[in-house]
Amino acid sequence: MKNQIGIIGLGVMGNALARNILNQGYSLSVYNKTFSKTNSFVENYSAEGYADLKSFLDSLKKPRIIILMISDFAVDQMIDELLFYLEEEDILIDGGNSFYKDTFKRIEKVHKNKVLYLGMGVSGGEKGALEGPSLMPSGDKKAYDYVENILKDIAAKRSDSIACVQYIGPEGSGHFVKMVHNAIEYAIMQLIAESYSLLKSFGYDLDEIADIFDHYNQGRLQSYLMEITSKIVNYQKKDEYLIEKIKDEAKQKGTGKWCAISSFEYEAAIPTLIEAVQARTFSQQPHGKDIHVRHNKSNELVDGIEKLLYLSIIMIYEQGFGLMNKASETHHWELNLSAIASIWQEGCIIKSSFLKQLEEVFKKHKSILEDENLQNEINQALNSWMNTIIKMMSSEIYAPVSCSAWTYYMGKKTALGMNLIMAQRDYFGAHGYERIDQQGQFHSNWNQ
Amino acid sequence: MKNQIGIIGLGVMGNALARNILNQGYSLSVYNKTFSKTNSFVENYSAEGYADLKSFLDSLKKPRIIILMISDFAVDQMIDELLFYLEEEDILIDGGNSFYKDTFKRIEKVHKNKVLYLGMGVSGGEKGALEGPSLMPSGDKKAYDYVENILKDIAAKRSDSIACVQYIGPEGSGHFVKMVHNAIEYAIMQLIAESYSLLKSFGYDLDEIADIFDHYNQGRLQSYLMEITSKIVNYQKKDEYLIEKIKDEAKQKGTGKWCAISSFEYEAAIPTLIEAVQARTFSQQPHGKDIHVRHNKSNELVDGIEKLLYLSIIMIYEQGFGLMNKASETHHWELNLSAIASIWQEGCIIKSSFLKQLEEVFKKHKSILEDENLQNEINQALNSWMNTIIKMMSSEIYAPVSCSAWTYYMGKKTALGMNLIMAQRDYFGAHGYERIDQQGQFHSNWNQ
Repeated sequence: MKNQIGIIGLGVMGNALARNILNQGYSLSVYNKTFSKTNSFVENYSAEGYADLKSFLDSLKKPRIIILMISDFAVDQMIDELLFYLEEEDILIDGGNSFYKDTFKRIEKVHKNKVLYLGMGVSGGEKGALEGPSLMPSGDKKAYDYVENILKDIAAKRSDSIACVQYIGPEGSGHFVKMVHNAIEYAIMQLIAESYSLLKSFGYDLDEIADIFDHYNQGRLQSYLMEITSKIVNYQKKDEYLIEKIKDEAKQKGTGKWCAISSFEYEAAIPTLIEAVQARTFSQQPHGKDIHVRHNKSNELVDGIEKLLYLSIIMIYEQGFGLMNKASETHHWELNLSAIASIWQEGCIIKSSFLKQLEEVFKKHKSILEDENLQNEINQALNSWMNTIIKMMSSEIYAPVSCSAWTYYMGKKTALGMNLIMAQRDYFGAHGYERIDQQGQFHSNWNQ
Repeated sequence: MKNQIGIIGLGVMGNALARNILNQGYSLSVYNKTFSKTNSFVENYSAEGYADLKSFLDSLKKPRIIILMISDFAVDQMIDELLFYLEEEDILIDGGNSFYKDTFKRIEKVHKNKVLYLGMGVSGGEKGALEGPSLMPSGDKKAYDYVENILKDIAAKRSDSIACVQYIGPEGSGHFVKMVHNAIEYAIMQLIAESYSLLKSFGYDLDEIADIFDHYNQGRLQSYLMEITSKIVNYQKKDEYLIEKIKDEAKQKGTGKWCAISSFEYEAAIPTLIEAVQARTFSQQPHGKDIHVRHNKSNELVDGIEKLLYLSIIMIYEQGFGLMNKASETHHWELNLSAIASIWQEGCIIKSSFLKQLEEVFKKHKSILEDENLQNEINQALNSWMNTIIKMMSSEIYAPVSCSAWTYYMGKKTALGMNLIMAQRDYFGAHGYERIDQQGQFHSNWNQ
């Protein structure tokens, strides 16, 4: 009997996804470059392990379904080796964090051998991969249709039983969407860290802060990130709060940077997402060690932070979905923004009740700010948001994402002063300017 | 008699630089793809014009000195055509805004024909190119030594007669430095636009704002950008303030984006520079038309804005020079930061008296914030800076660069909350964390 699915790569994510597939009742072959990992996996789970690629591939039912869960830098070489054996209609699925333009090149390459390809964003970390991730597959629709039921089985399920997987679009659009997901994740995490700093600077202790994030998680901020923040903040080990022993320096992998860079290519403004990416780089440089504490607790502050978090998260999503929309237009991907908000509701790191709202908003609008209900929510909270931003300034904490989200929204409402910049450019570089009252390009001799 | 210098490209910058060279008494040959431009140039100025490359090159003394002043996209093809005729030791100088990595490739290419190459940043706009630009040449030191006197003649002169040109370093380092110069320029221009918006929102009229910028220009903010802003703001034409007729949307060319992208490659944090680049993109999207005016003029505000401008400019330079330092370390360019601050003091768009101070600071330090005098200036102005930032928040204007500069400095002084982010990453992705009290990589089961 041949097996239904093959997995290559048994790292943290591949291992978890393999167990998920087994739990769903599929027969599975596994392969890992380092055989000891394969060996220990088959000792613990009912999969068949192989030490060489050929035997691994021979063990699979045709057309073969092979999921790559390996590091980005190893994907091209692995594909070359696989193409040596693969046959027409075999399906390769790259479930790693590949760069979306690489995915497009790989699709074109395997097509020469009539092999089908899906680049698939997989979100949810180890737990998500094991219990049900959010899946963002793109590429050959024919391949998607063939594996759709499998993907639905292993994906996260929403409370209404809908599986968190949809065909995203052609080319590397699935990896692109996953990349934007990760940048949104960076921004929300940074935003939460800034609220944590603000609460500390107003004199709240770690147990109180944990309670406050738990309180937020009961309301419209309900989300996985609020939930785990509450658990992390007062987590104790050997009678010490672990968070206070962790180095104040953030690491990052590539997706946040890729997303930032892509915003310049598609001319989409995502300043708040980029501030979060830059903040991690910033933290590698010398910086202060303490937060100045003022002891000035108030319910008003706790309520104000809730509003700041909620409205900033709206601005973060507005920017992230705006970028996806721009890329979609450029590449003719026809991304369904509502469907993307739908499959992010479970399984992934940014899952939240707010995404349920966004699923509805994007059925009608391309911008969140066009939605009347959300606009009302923003208006009602605006004063409190402003007061909280001002508290962030006067408490002298580090709050790049909070500041950027605020000023982004201000920019949506007011004049920007770009007329001065265009005049400066025309003054020193004769770059010309446009007028509000006439068509055409103008130039003035400002110095007369 | 053969001519001493050849210029290819008679656009705004090439035309101005050609006239500058003639004014310095050099004999000049000119070539432009569209011959009509060549024709009209030689009708007005005492240069020799040629309709074909071969005659142009034949007219030059050997080793030939040829300055390319053409669009970035046309450089490679032009080099290919030139290499057909050029001889050993001829010198090609690219004075356009080329991408610094392209410059490196071009140096390697022309070396195959034993031709020498300089990639040269030229700043100052049309006026600078004509009257004396700031020049940032890099590449073949031998070529630099050969043309040094010419470059010194055409470059801007400081009041102490020192010419604003220095050999920057190997490879494309000159174009890299020019690219960072431009991003700094973007950030200062955006910063000024934000101050302009703030003054408007507090009820100042355009004549008053012009006076205020003129006042700033008399003090430690003395700079070309302050000077021209003062002139622009109340410039009238046909009884109308021209600035009020200019569209509130900013355009940009490539260098700001390149600089932003390079920060991710070199892991340098330049969030404030990037906010300025993103602001121009942002302005292309729908946004408000008016600034809400409150009528609340005060000397305290005018003084506070002076401090905000000065301290924000410090943060902008700190980030820009930090990026150059990182790139220099990566590529072993051995950039002389003090020399760069020196040649930016005249001729270029960001010329200012502050750069004189930076020239001294970088003789002793790699970071501006290590300088005791400047640190004292920051400390003295800090409260006023905070109050002004708070006024920016409460006046609901768009101020991304001002906000980013403020929070950047706050981050230098306080704890950042990155320990929470590292804990979150370890919670959902088992990415591990480092501790403040022990060496090594740690992982916890946070959910227990």
